[in-house]
Amino acid sequence: MKMVHNGIEYGNMQLIAEIYDALHRGLGLEASELHTLFDHWNQEELSSYLMEITAKIFKKTDEETGQPLVEVILDKAGQKGTGKWTGQDALNIGYPIPTINAALTARILSAYKAERQKAAEVLGGPQPTGASSDAAAITASAKSALYAATLITYAQGFGMLRTASEEYGYQLDFGDIARIWRGGCIIRAVFLNDIRAAFAAEPDLPNLLLAPYFRDAVGSHQKALRQVIQFATQAGIAVPALSASLAYYDGYRSGTLPANLIQAQRDFFGAHTYQRSDQPGIFHTQWE
Amino acid sequence: MKMVHNGIEYGNMQLIAEIYDALHRGLGLEASELHTLFDHWNQEELSSYLMEITAKIFKKTDEETGQPLVEVILDKAGQKGTGKWTGQDALNIGYPIPTINAALTARILSAYKAERQKAAEVLGGPQPTGASSDAAAITASAKSALYAATLITYAQGFGMLRTASEEYGYQLDFGDIARIWRGGCIIRAVFLNDIRAAFAAEPDLPNLLLAPYFRDAVGSHQKALRQVIQFATQAGIAVPALSASLAYYDGYRSGTLPANLIQAQRDFFGAHTYQRSDQPGIFHTQWE
Repeated sequence: MKMVHNGIEYGNMQLIAEIYDALHRGLGLEASELHTLFDHWNQEELSSYLMEITAKIFKKTDEETGQPLVEVILDKAGQKGTGKWTGQDALNIGYPIPTINAALTARILSAYKAERQKAAEVLGGPQPTGASSDAAAITASAKSALYAATLITYAQGFGMLRTASEEYGYQLDFGDIARIWRGGCIIRAVFLNDIRAAFAAEPDLPNLLLAPYFRDAVGSHQKALRQVIQFATQAGIAVPALSASLAYYDGYRSGTLPANLIQAQRDFFGAHTYQRSDQPGIFHTQWE
Repeated sequence: MKMVHNGIEYGNMQLIAEIYDALHRGLGLEASELHTLFDHWNQEELSSYLMEITAKIFKKTDEETGQPLVEVILDKAGQKGTGKWTGQDALNIGYPIPTINAALTARILSAYKAERQKAAEVLGGPQPTGASSDAAAITASAKSALYAATLITYAQGFGMLRTASEEYGYQLDFGDIARIWRGGCIIRAVFLNDIRAAFAAEPDLPNLLLAPYFRDAVGSHQKALRQVIQFATQAGIAVPALSASLAYYDGYRSGTLPANLIQAQRDFFGAHTYQRSDQPGIFHTQWE
């Protein structure tokens, strides 16, 4: 439970970092403006410990330079290993946690600072301009995008706990876990009350996104998530965790995915067989 | 080397599947049109064994129903475990392979077919319409997007091999690996000749993307990759591997990433310390 908690924590932190990047490098918002924005967001549905400390971080001034302290901190993220463990275990039990994977990968990539600086000089593509004619709209969408992607991250984490509980016979009480996390931890957030309520209403809920509160919240904010991803894609700003969150959502809510082609390829080159959508059984085709 | 080969294979297959999804569900292209398109693409810079068999798959008719066989295959992807092993080992050695991770996650998510079908009935968002006023432009961009993302996947795979070679003292010859793979394997592709040439010119090349051929190829096709991602994002089609490829590219070519905020958060809640960008040393701040 603590391991998955830390995985969700990695996801949340990376999502906040990507929103910061979109607003700061993408739209030119300064630390003082970001402080005001995050402080405001922290008083609404996004209210959480991580939002609270992020708002405070943006207000802190470096005594040596007089600059916002966050801006003199080196952009190489460290890790202690529990996020890695979450990613590896999710592969073992076969549950998709793409936002958490993206957060792990983003930390790893950040550590290649010297290579990145060299690559920045030679690799082509758009550079963030620090301005957009849609700045106000994108800033408003950023809040909704962060909320939707954060809820999607919790859905992945609870989905992983549910799969692990079945796999290992843990008999976890997911409402209790939400209550414990609400009581005090790095990922404590107001909406853990809603998670607790969702599992109280339906203890066997297959996915948090199917509970009415989360279905409606993500449903109403997913458009903003698309807008922020499109802005960042255009501006040349990497948003791996926001994109992975949307891909999980769009993949999960799709009755058809292109995995049929992958099964055809596997059967073609390795005779791995396939199932059909119109009848039971295991099939193999002589493709040539 | 075989393990990383299979990881790249997972990435390539998922990228092809996402392009298929964008063209088929997104733009309404039928299997016969996809056959023509992939057969054509396979005669140019994208030429590879996987492109060749994909073109052939689109031409195969199901004897029972008279439908294209690919369309009656169930969209639940299987796996044998080497992709998983690649993902777990990359976390151990600390190298980012986000396209391969996304491909793994997509296969896992596809297996939750019953849940997806239920979710499809209740979760909100755009549905692919099978039409777009930009259909011709998006189809043309799809080829470039697939090429750029495929090269980015090879860059991740060779980056992982390089890191493993250093970590474990393997003294790998990357040009030789390209030559061997070109000789015959699932991921054999014409551009492996260019990979071989890149390592012949610079044996210590830190990343394939920095070699002139790949820098120019990805540089000229990255715009199309953005276009296809934006189309899919708008249409509600999940493109996790295309998005992860772009995020790797945009992250790698960025001298600044928002990991400074993550380091600030880690120092705030756990006193994990941070480095500064303007002087050496390890620092900790009393944030409150």
